[in-house]
Amino acid sequence: MKDVIDIETLEVGYDIPALPGMDEADIQTPCLILDLDALERNIKKMGDYAASHGMRHRVHGKMHKSVDVAKLQESLGGAVGVCCQKVSEAEVFARGGIKDVLVSNQVRDPAKIDRLARIPKLGARAICCVDDLANVADLSAAAVKHGTTIECLVEIDCGAGRCGVTTTPAVIEIAKAIDAAPGLKFSGIQAYQGAMQHLDSYDERMAKTTIAINMVRDAVEGLKAEGLECDIVGGGGTGSYYFESNSGVYNELQCGSYAFMDADYGRILDKDGNRIDRGEWENALFILTSVMSHAKADKAIVDAGLKAQSVDSGLPVIFGRDDVKYVKCSDEHGVVADPEGVLKVNDKLRLVPGHCDPTCNVHDWYVGVRNGKVEVVWPVSARGKAY
Amino acid sequence: MKDVIDIETLEVGYDIPALPGMDEADIQTPCLILDLDALERNIKKMGDYAASHGMRHRVHGKMHKSVDVAKLQESLGGAVGVCCQKVSEAEVFARGGIKDVLVSNQVRDPAKIDRLARIPKLGARAICCVDDLANVADLSAAAVKHGTTIECLVEIDCGAGRCGVTTTPAVIEIAKAIDAAPGLKFSGIQAYQGAMQHLDSYDERMAKTTIAINMVRDAVEGLKAEGLECDIVGGGGTGSYYFESNSGVYNELQCGSYAFMDADYGRILDKDGNRIDRGEWENALFILTSVMSHAKADKAIVDAGLKAQSVDSGLPVIFGRDDVKYVKCSDEHGVVADPEGVLKVNDKLRLVPGHCDPTCNVHDWYVGVRNGKVEVVWPVSARGKAY
Repeated sequence: MKDVIDIETLEVGYDIPALPGMDEADIQTPCLILDLDALERNIKKMGDYAASHGMRHRVHGKMHKSVDVAKLQESLGGAVGVCCQKVSEAEVFARGGIKDVLVSNQVRDPAKIDRLARIPKLGARAICCVDDLANVADLSAAAVKHGTTIECLVEIDCGAGRCGVTTTPAVIEIAKAIDAAPGLKFSGIQAYQGAMQHLDSYDERMAKTTIAINMVRDAVEGLKAEGLECDIVGGGGTGSYYFESNSGVYNELQCGSYAFMDADYGRILDKDGNRIDRGEWENALFILTSVMSHAKADKAIVDAGLKAQSVDSGLPVIFGRDDVKYVKCSDEHGVVADPEGVLKVNDKLRLVPGHCDPTCNVHDWYVGVRNGKVEVVWPVSARGKAY
Repeated sequence: MKDVIDIETLEVGYDIPALPGMDEADIQTPCLILDLDALERNIKKMGDYAASHGMRHRVHGKMHKSVDVAKLQESLGGAVGVCCQKVSEAEVFARGGIKDVLVSNQVRDPAKIDRLARIPKLGARAICCVDDLANVADLSAAAVKHGTTIECLVEIDCGAGRCGVTTTPAVIEIAKAIDAAPGLKFSGIQAYQGAMQHLDSYDERMAKTTIAINMVRDAVEGLKAEGLECDIVGGGGTGSYYFESNSGVYNELQCGSYAFMDADYGRILDKDGNRIDRGEWENALFILTSVMSHAKADKAIVDAGLKAQSVDSGLPVIFGRDDVKYVKCSDEHGVVADPEGVLKVNDKLRLVPGHCDPTCNVHDWYVGVRNGKVEVVWPVSARGKAY
């Protein structure tokens, strides 16, 4: 942060919602705030879990897009590196000092492949996913051109229904091609079941993950029979990491949302039927918003609308309040039902966003708070890096 | 643009999706593209309409957040200035050379009021809205402190149910306070009926707007009886501008989406029952996206998901294609149903976003294209300016 921008010389508000040392009450809204105590506890808890289960944790940087958060996950949570979804994100993490970066996605465009092949020159291990034999020659040519190595995972579609192959023979065919291609290294399997992470029921998530684990086990054994070892068998998210950790097959977790939590994830249930945001994980991310109009007695208008969050997974929830409710979201306004008229203009509320990933992506800054004071201001380093 | 960043010296892809002169086929995806011919026709058409109806057109800069587009709306569409929703946006437009800027919203936070009062020092007229008597003294103190004038419109809630007062006596009370306050100037009324712009039926929109017009007429007459003239009676959007233009009461339009269009607005019907994107306005804004996986025969995975758009008003529509359909949106992926298997990896598609405003707000650049070539690359100047 200090290397990039000397925020002390900037006037607060023009580009930055807060300065370190400031009272929380003086933060400009709407903006993202991080409860640093909660964030650190989440990060340490998942790190400890992974370590105690013999798993590496490659944290999902696509969620927060922040070099600073990734480094905290390395130092406090023992993370081995990051995964992200785009080459332009991977560049940001590599430039920021993350040494092990997986693009957990396909890279097909020639310009993007060229950029991927140059990531090792930034000092980072570069890994990507492959689900099509036709991709192998392009990746190989770029790595050879730049004199680098691109490590490749074969992606298995284990239920998400997006990218990835669905049979062990298809996995083996692509893995062999990678293994034989100059400049490439076959490094294992990517198998993230994204479609079931948000199912409320623990048993339903277990059933879906069991199918995924069986597909992955079959592929790993098939590859082994062909003499191909998997350095990485990666997958697992906030709604499933305990299944992959106890599978005996996966060796890397890729959790993202656990660190920040959001309203949609928070509603899913653990094995005892409790919401995961009531004990397993803490809400560490909030949209701080202010009341900007209360011209109607029973509703307050707040300054966080669609340009301060994504509502794809539902409206935000007002943290710690049962007396008021966020009921409507338009471009720049939120309508908060305030039947008792308890809110006043300039009152601030903490909103738990419906979905953390796309919400973080509309903001430029994280304001980290502790004990009522601003402690850090971190850039959302890879915001908008969608290429 | 050239004053801010010398894009010729940057390598394409790292921060900018295209360079002027490039073939459209080489643009990096996902990104926003503007069909410049369509954009110019839309801008000219609305400008001509406003002029021929004796209306000023204060274009809504909150939609595009672009100084370059606003300047085109001034030069080609006769716009008298911009409105926007946040003080931080207003600063961007004022610094970019727009001389007449209305924050069509309440400004209540002390730091934001202070910034608002300094906008005239950037060379622009600064106008804001007021819906609470308690706001007047704060605005006045800031203007006096900085030796500037803040012009104030009283906001009427004419149906949107958000900010604004609802009775003529309340309008008059606030107007008188503004008129009496040092540093402030009473400049008229803000009355935008945002809640009905997207109703499909022309007659329903007319009925709602008629209610709004009657409220505004009553307020204007009431103010006049008190000796208070309205320089500005502003409102009107892409779904209603013809009603305000023929009202005999409004004198400023505030249209935004007409310039770019989107899928949700496009579905509303004109007085003849035709969709407004089939003749009245052209789609000028698209999300350019590429196929990045086709591992399943019947679906293509594209690279524009929730971080390339807002889906609050529905999924994007693939422009000019009936054979394929965007059916699902996740963080970084879109699923395109391709029953005939006509798409190939790296094929590009133009998506009409569901909702233009929050979609533009996640992107850093507009790539303007004409005749298959990139002609301009404009920054989304006020992206993320939510304060």
